[in-house]
Amino acid sequence: MNEYVITIGRQFGSGGRSIGEKLAQKLGIPFYDKELISIAAKESGVNPEIFENVDEKAANSLLYSLSMGMYSFGNGFSAMGDLPVNDKLYLLQHQIIREIAEKENCVIVGRCADYILANNPKCVKVFVYANMTYRKEQSVKKHGIDEARAEHIINKTDKSRANYYSFYSGQKWGMAENYDLCIDSSKLDEDKIVDLIADYIKMR
Amino acid sequence: MNEYVITIGRQFGSGGRSIGEKLAQKLGIPFYDKELISIAAKESGVNPEIFENVDEKAANSLLYSLSMGMYSFGNGFSAMGDLPVNDKLYLLQHQIIREIAEKENCVIVGRCADYILANNPKCVKVFVYANMTYRKEQSVKKHGIDEARAEHIINKTDKSRANYYSFYSGQKWGMAENYDLCIDSSKLDEDKIVDLIADYIKMR
Repeated sequence: MNEYVITIGRQFGSGGRSIGEKLAQKLGIPFYDKELISIAAKESGVNPEIFENVDEKAANSLLYSLSMGMYSFGNGFSAMGDLPVNDKLYLLQHQIIREIAEKENCVIVGRCADYILANNPKCVKVFVYANMTYRKEQSVKKHGIDEARAEHIINKTDKSRANYYSFYSGQKWGMAENYDLCIDSSKLDEDKIVDLIADYIKMR
Repeated sequence: MNEYVITIGRQFGSGGRSIGEKLAQKLGIPFYDKELISIAAKESGVNPEIFENVDEKAANSLLYSLSMGMYSFGNGFSAMGDLPVNDKLYLLQHQIIREIAEKENCVIVGRCADYILANNPKCVKVFVYANMTYRKEQSVKKHGIDEARAEHIINKTDKSRANYYSFYSGQKWGMAENYDLCIDSSKLDEDKIVDLIADYIKMR
């Protein structure tokens, strides 16, 4: 039996993924982010690239989905009917997240995992965020893009994640009350944030 | 010179005030909550009871304020003109909070202190919250009221605090990004939350 599952919601450029990876390393437990797509693809027999395009994006309108070829007809998981690929991926990830949460201590980044596991007492829900200045600096450093481009990507990705979160959870993304612990990553070194979350896990 | 000022925003019944008090004790520093009213009353020569009635309440409409006698004409702080008492108290607390933040390490609860000190690098902004079940239990225990009454007071007080916060700060109350650290008090013992915040202060 596992003791805890740490979910990490994060604003783009806040370093939430990196904090999650280091935390998993420190605690010696598995880390899931994009890995969830590979598992979903494997379990459903769908090409991972198809899933990658819609990952953490809310389903669009029927017309848009049709025009973008987001509908999948009879591609191996027909039990879900003619749902948009976004919804199919969400449902698969939902199922995978619940299965993982039953069997092992782990860190799961994004994908509404906090909402999916809201009623699981083992779940520790963390949200990582930072001001725009910090996130721009981090994005410029990490992806080698200029500031304007960084700001554009941050705004676009956050909007997409907020839509995805509110579409599937019915809750507002970034409200403190959806999480157990929320940390501004621009105010404390990444390694110290990892220590703080690890301390929190021990204290419970 | 002081090193830090800890502001604590809190939902009613979350234990935020108690956490702030214990934290101040642990760190051996002053604690300000209702104390800010006494100071404001003393500095302005206004009866503290008048301020208590409007504490952490946003100014109402002109008509309502007049009908409730919330306007003060020539009562000792006429430099502020004919502002509603709410606004006068806010402005006085604003000034007092900035003065305190310049001279001593301390804990300040509520009163938009996080917003007032947003640009002060010494300020550590904490938000404490909890689910309704926990807050009802705490309120029943602390105030000896029944559950329905507790829920009514929680909803009313939170609404009032949210209005106050958004009226004076222009920000949404309870959004994680307004704070450095947000903690759900129903998930960890009060003393451990105090330790966690104290650790955070040391880590900075």
